[in-house]
Amino acid sequence: MAMTNAETGRRPRIAQVGAIALGTPDIDESLRFFRDLLGMEEVRRDGSASYLRGYQELKHHSLVLFESDEPIVDSYCLRTERPEHVEQFADILREQGVEVLELAPGHQAGRGAAIRFLHPHSRHPFEIYYDIEAPEAPDGIRSLLPSNSSKRRGLGVRRIDHINLATAVEQVGDAELWLRETLGFRRRESMSHDGTLLSSWLAVTPQVHDIAIGAGVNNEEAQLHHVAFNLENQSDVLVAADTLRDHGVAINAGPGKHGISQGMFLYVRDPGSGHCVEIFAGGYLIFDPDWKSIDWDMEAVLSHGLSWYGDPLDTPEGSALSVTTPSSGLQSRLGSLARG
Amino acid sequence: MAMTNAETGRRPRIAQVGAIALGTPDIDESLRFFRDLLGMEEVRRDGSASYLRGYQELKHHSLVLFESDEPIVDSYCLRTERPEHVEQFADILREQGVEVLELAPGHQAGRGAAIRFLHPHSRHPFEIYYDIEAPEAPDGIRSLLPSNSSKRRGLGVRRIDHINLATAVEQVGDAELWLRETLGFRRRESMSHDGTLLSSWLAVTPQVHDIAIGAGVNNEEAQLHHVAFNLENQSDVLVAADTLRDHGVAINAGPGKHGISQGMFLYVRDPGSGHCVEIFAGGYLIFDPDWKSIDWDMEAVLSHGLSWYGDPLDTPEGSALSVTTPSSGLQSRLGSLARG
Amino acid sequence: MAMTNAETGRRPRIAQVGAIALGTPDIDESLRFFRDLLGMEEVRRDGSASYLRGYQELKHHSLVLFESDEPIVDSYCLRTERPEHVEQFADILREQGVEVLELAPGHQAGRGAAIRFLHPHSRHPFEIYYDIEAPEAPDGIRSLLPSNSSKRRGLGVRRIDHINLATAVEQVGDAELWLRETLGFRRRESMSHDGTLLSSWLAVTPQVHDIAIGAGVNNEEAQLHHVAFNLENQSDVLVAADTLRDHGVAINAGPGKHGISQGMFLYVRDPGSGHCVEIFAGGYLIFDPDWKSIDWDMEAVLSHGLSWYGDPLDTPEGSALSVTTPSSGLQSRLGSLARG
Amino acid sequence: MAMTNAETGRRPRIAQVGAIALGTPDIDESLRFFRDLLGMEEVRRDGSASYLRGYQELKHHSLVLFESDEPIVDSYCLRTERPEHVEQFADILREQGVEVLELAPGHQAGRGAAIRFLHPHSRHPFEIYYDIEAPEAPDGIRSLLPSNSSKRRGLGVRRIDHINLATAVEQVGDAELWLRETLGFRRRESMSHDGTLLSSWLAVTPQVHDIAIGAGVNNEEAQLHHVAFNLENQSDVLVAADTLRDHGVAINAGPGKHGISQGMFLYVRDPGSGHCVEIFAGGYLIFDPDWKSIDWDMEAVLSHGLSWYGDPLDTPEGSALSVTTPSSGLQSRLGSLARG
Repeated sequence: MAMTNAETGRRPRIAQVGAIALGTPDIDESLRFFRDLLGMEEVRRDGSASYLRGYQELKHHSLVLFESDEPIVDSYCLRTERPEHVEQFADILREQGVEVLELAPGHQAGRGAAIRFLHPHSRHPFEIYYDIEAPEAPDGIRSLLPSNSSKRRGLGVRRIDHINLATAVEQVGDAELWLRETLGFRRRESMSHDGTLLSSWLAVTPQVHDIAIGAGVNNEEAQLHHVAFNLENQSDVLVAADTLRDHGVAINAGPGKHGISQGMFLYVRDPGSGHCVEIFAGGYLIFDPDWKSIDWDMEAVLSHGLSWYGDPLDTPEGSALSVTTPSSGLQSRLGSLARG
Repeated sequence: MAMTNAETGRRPRIAQVGAIALGTPDIDESLRFFRDLLGMEEVRRDGSASYLRGYQELKHHSLVLFESDEPIVDSYCLRTERPEHVEQFADILREQGVEVLELAPGHQAGRGAAIRFLHPHSRHPFEIYYDIEAPEAPDGIRSLLPSNSSKRRGLGVRRIDHINLATAVEQVGDAELWLRETLGFRRRESMSHDGTLLSSWLAVTPQVHDIAIGAGVNNEEAQLHHVAFNLENQSDVLVAADTLRDHGVAINAGPGKHGISQGMFLYVRDPGSGHCVEIFAGGYLIFDPDWKSIDWDMEAVLSHGLSWYGDPLDTPEGSALSVTTPSSGLQSRLGSLARG
Repeated sequence: MAMTNAETGRRPRIAQVGAIALGTPDIDESLRFFRDLLGMEEVRRDGSASYLRGYQELKHHSLVLFESDEPIVDSYCLRTERPEHVEQFADILREQGVEVLELAPGHQAGRGAAIRFLHPHSRHPFEIYYDIEAPEAPDGIRSLLPSNSSKRRGLGVRRIDHINLATAVEQVGDAELWLRETLGFRRRESMSHDGTLLSSWLAVTPQVHDIAIGAGVNNEEAQLHHVAFNLENQSDVLVAADTLRDHGVAINAGPGKHGISQGMFLYVRDPGSGHCVEIFAGGYLIFDPDWKSIDWDMEAVLSHGLSWYGDPLDTPEGSALSVTTPSSGLQSRLGSLARG
Repeated sequence: MAMTNAETGRRPRIAQVGAIALGTPDIDESLRFFRDLLGMEEVRRDGSASYLRGYQELKHHSLVLFESDEPIVDSYCLRTERPEHVEQFADILREQGVEVLELAPGHQAGRGAAIRFLHPHSRHPFEIYYDIEAPEAPDGIRSLLPSNSSKRRGLGVRRIDHINLATAVEQVGDAELWLRETLGFRRRESMSHDGTLLSSWLAVTPQVHDIAIGAGVNNEEAQLHHVAFNLENQSDVLVAADTLRDHGVAINAGPGKHGISQGMFLYVRDPGSGHCVEIFAGGYLIFDPDWKSIDWDMEAVLSHGLSWYGDPLDTPEGSALSVTTPSSGLQSRLGSLARG
């Protein structure tokens, strides 16, 4: 058993996927989707940016929406285990020759100092931070339960669940290895074909995946496949399908259940931006400290890995799931930047 | 508003779809499916025939399985509102020139006298009866609740829900009209193309359909499209999908939700016979006495009528849903017959 | 088997419980509850009265709220099977010496002519009608599904389910018999103690109960025990409990499952009026034409009849379920009356 | 922010609550409950002991049942993060003056070497181990999904969830502190009265609790309050309540939802032993690295902490929840012991 980053205890660690920042050409329509239909709380509006969280998130936000000519991802935001880990990650990255920007406190509202850099292989823009405020929700919507920030509303999104990155197939192997070796994610499941890694599901928590990375249909780097938000029960996903269908929100695929992760899926598109959003519930948790990655071949993946039941997810060509959206480069589209 | 059969009060009435009798080449495998997986009670074994019911059915059986070289339907069994209606239906049928067999009590175990005939248009074999025993379940499985015959077991089939008949497209219009005018079913929803009725959902109860009839993919008469059994909740259908998938039962389609009927569907094939079985939950109930049939055109049907969410059901060619199984002729395969 | 009213075909028949009209001291707060939390559509506001329906009701309304100094029930509204049945019921009632008021079309908005009278034993104010409009919902909330009037909203109330009447214990037997003999309701389940009928569940549809009548805790006549609204799944009742709890709506009892009716229950109080409202899902349907009423004794009722699981409902004294609200007398509080 | 055991990286760590070993006076009846009703797999029978696991557990067992004159807990079994942690914990314990037994491999079937000791404050018998086999399930029940050991069966128990310990109220404070300081559990929620800690919910994983400890009703040390097993959805808990009720299994309380942990609960008693078992689903996950324990006062606990909805859990006196069962002393009742 190889020592991983997280196990040595001497290196900085990622604690969670904290947030994603999405550019949208129609922020009002995106807010109708995320706030009014999915039920997220708009914690703060800051010029052209809106900060949202699920009803079970106590911290400031897990989603930033900002006005943008095209749908784009500004940043994938990871939170560290301890405050000093942010700078420790910066040091490690610079040692690797990765350019690191230092973002001033408030670059994203409610957040402390952070660093920003591009994944050296897939060019996805990451931000790493620790400090973030935990504002109480306003009176009218504050939950009586101290473990919830607000009352359940709309379709009941309670938190961000995971992010799924797409990139060129040639990069997947190196990009995934880097996520494991440098950021400390552990591989839980994966799929390969003829020795080429096509997709990998990784986590720093007992979830099957906090992050996934795989080959995108357009074979371009730095793409968002989807961001997933978590509901409490599989039955909530059915209610979401019912409601979103009737509100004219495009359903890419689902509801159904993945074999990989055992999560219930419903892929829809934010009507304001076209970003693919997974409405997700369930999945198994991994508490075994000696978990061995489940490595799927294509035959099994197509038989029962992608779709255990429900929508077959078997038509890559022309499939609505083949939609991805690109990412920003090193410079953030949000706020003012302090160069590192 | 035309007076219907049921409303005049002077004609016999069907109260419910009581049972279906299915021939299976592998009755042990069919029992493993219906009894052990779906959780139905085997009330009686009679030579090569087995009688089953759901845990919420107080009467003797809603499903008969019998050994047969090929998968075949012996009979679609309808129960009347009152005892004298059986003979009244026989009279009406004979007036129409339909040949009617009289079945002795016990032709199906637990049942009283019945009549048997072929639908004059689609040639489906129907049986009509009133008397049927209501045996208590044995001690070990009898429910504490007097409204349930037995304790919930397996995947929780509680009762037969509806039957869906297929026939040649040229017959659908006449066959459906006959179900309405002679048997008193009311049309709740339908779909047509270029003036040709393709499918109709009909009921004598507030369900959207106790029976449906439509054009089958092979365009042959007297086919079974599927028989549906009812579960209590949509979440039960998800558990059924999970479990049946893992037991290697072929899933034709689903889970998903129909726009027509608003029912949750999961189409599977009895591994012993190949008959298509729908695991069904939900649907709306019609209490309005002046319900107007919802008549769909093909565009709306394909957009959201067949599949409101979930498996798109959009590939008639090669679709597992295109499976149908044939019916017996006038002579029943079960027991001894007394000619009428 | 005795011929019932509904079977003779020569007498008028009730098709459904169509609506209830509730007086509330705080109509804004009641609207917040029924419209904003439960998700009902406010079809029309008419002076101090508001008309609402569930998303699966195509007709004008199933709930009327009107301003009133105290919480009161103006009317329990039954819809007949055919138009001419309204006048036929009027004749039968007058033959019995019951005073009958004739209500002009529009007495309740959207409704045609109706009659009004007091139950001759329990003094509950009933109205009987047939004609009622079926307005389309406005663009923004109209459902794409023709069997739904509007999109699912809030906690997903889809229709009125049943009404539960309370009266003095001495009246229950006669009052229940009258509902059966004159209005054609059939008894499905009942509970008695020492030969005295304490409660009875009755229906004209395959539901276990469209109406129930029983002894109220204060032993006063003409009380409302509760009105029930129907959700699609048991899981929806859990979401309702979660949400209503967090919005400070008083939960009387539940969630839990009744043995009688097998329905999932959640009893709450409209915060505007204090009327007891049951959030209800599930229950079994009765298609057997020869159903025999299940008559419970108190031991079984207390063991598993009232509560099959969940909240025990075992504390009549001091129980929040002991709340009832009174009814109007013969004169309606709504609109203008035309004397019969 | 104080450095915790788990954060220093230099000390041994508990990874998960692995198993519990329960003595039962009627092992056949206990197996009927855990194996046949709850659906756990009996992996191995070894003389008078039976080893079981949920369908989502890949390791050898999470539950040991063994014949015993009285209901008793033999051991609460914790698994470490790394192999060497077992001996490191032994060293720490001996430094504290705690007597440590060394258990030979196979002391529990399928398990490697382990240590055993009594909690120095509450006297609960703990075992700590790392090595444990991961046997494949036999052909007939092995799951097609590699992340499940077997197919979902019965009521769908997928894994052990947590254990809840009771002890004398005077010990709770010290006992809980020791669990945090020596074993590295983190407090997530707690309840106190007049400055006395009454109960605490702790975890080494993102679950709200892997273990809880609180004052027992009989105020005796080393008691089991309950052990919880995890189902996939809240709807599964309702099906479990339905089924267990009908099989005559005593329901102590529930179903309902805790405010603390937000988990769905159903407390029942193993009919073979009387041990209290919680059928559990849901709950929130804690990914925030700076989680602050939610410390409840009694008023809030009784208002919405213990029961957020459903069974009120408000009657400590005479409540079926007041049942606890005692633990073994230092010597294990299972197998042969090698003295440390």
